[in-house]
Amino acid sequence: MTTVISSSVQQFQTCIDACNQCMQACEECLTSCLKAADVQARTHCINILRDCADICAMAAQWMSRGSMYAKEFCQLCATICDACAAECAKFQDTHCQECANLCRQCAEECRKMSS
Amino acid sequence: MTTVISSSVQQFQTCIDACNQCMQACEECLTSCLKAADVQARTHCINILRDCADICAMAAQWMSRGSMYAKEFCQLCATICDACAAECAKFQDTHCQECANLCRQCAEECRKMSS
Amino acid sequence: MTTVISSSVQQFQTCIDACNQCMQACEECLTSCLKAADVQARTHCINILRDCADICAMAAQWMSRGSMYAKEFCQLCATICDACAAECAKFQDTHCQECANLCRQCAEECRKMSS
Amino acid sequence: MTTVISSSVQQFQTCIDACNQCMQACEECLTSCLKAADVQARTHCINILRDCADICAMAAQWMSRGSMYAKEFCQLCATICDACAAECAKFQDTHCQECANLCRQCAEECRKMSS
Repeated sequence: MTTVISSSVQQFQTCIDACNQCMQACEECLTSCLKAADVQARTHCINILRDCADICAMAAQWMSRGSMYAKEFCQLCATICDACAAECAKFQDTHCQECANLCRQCAEECRKMSS
Repeated sequence: MTTVISSSVQQFQTCIDACNQCMQACEECLTSCLKAADVQARTHCINILRDCADICAMAAQWMSRGSMYAKEFCQLCATICDACAAECAKFQDTHCQECANLCRQCAEECRKMSS
Repeated sequence: MTTVISSSVQQFQTCIDACNQCMQACEECLTSCLKAADVQARTHCINILRDCADICAMAAQWMSRGSMYAKEFCQLCATICDACAAECAKFQDTHCQECANLCRQCAEECRKMSS
Repeated sequence: MTTVISSSVQQFQTCIDACNQCMQACEECLTSCLKAADVQARTHCINILRDCADICAMAAQWMSRGSMYAKEFCQLCATICDACAAECAKFQDTHCQECANLCRQCAEECRKMSS
């Protein structure tokens, strides 16, 4: 993705991209988990995926606007991404494993950003 | 951006990326317009930028989840992106011109997607 | 709810309240449906509930700001609320029936608002 | 507002209502501040209003779904509502004073909820 970057958000670009990717992976994974034969075993995972997709989407928006609360927001985002990664990692489907990886990367970028 | 793509959203990826870029450009442009000496001349533009950033963010989320309303949502998104592009194009700042371009591209991708 | 109302949104207040209530009912219903023994029979309903909660939340925000696109946005919101009501009405749980009612009311208010 | 309340969110209802009212007040206040003759003096306020409207809307959604992260989310929401109240209180317009009051109430409810 070649994104036009103003100086104010340049520092955030890696984290914005990670949040967008994590949002997408969570939404996809949630849709796929709902179709799974063992959906009943996945309801806790699905609930975390809802929160994780939402907070990643808003984190990307707040970093883009240069919000003075972007760091605090990304700190909470990292917490939720970590929890989501741990939960998704329990399932062997490709979409769950990929989602777990992208959640972990996003958590790491959010922690860097908020430190 | 190398995004993990499930088959269900593969067709949407170009449009998802365009929406993410447009959201970011609108948020950045809004923040920059608020700092401009002639901010009073930009209030109409700022109001459209608010809507455009929001609808692009949600469009990316709905395409990612494979929503059955993604096409209708992207149709409205295209209308707002076009209006935002026309308004931003009136201002000569780099951030306004870049935002206008990304809004136009996003409108085009949303129209393709929803057709 | 006693809400402070500026003249610009006074006309929207009934619809804003209906959207907030519908958003809440959809989020609650989704959480409850995920816990149901027959969750597998409810995945289509759950997918519409995700969209309906999101669009109602954003519709309330756009009406509050007096967006020039509030009417078009509420038109799409009405379509999705109608679909969500029809789907929820198929299930006999109290939360589904209540959600169906609030979706119908919200659809009606959104249509009034956008006409 | 007579809202249908499942047992899981009953405890949150006061806070959900406060968040919805605060979101609305912030969106209205932002729109009105953009029209003010001294808009240049209000850009810091406008930037906080953007964040406050967004986080209140999402807090209402997360409490409605019974998110396990609702408390942590509301804690951050309280911080931002307090900052927004302090900023809005500096301006004498009715919409700013009313917004400041609703932000303070929302901050208080969010703190109660997250304790």
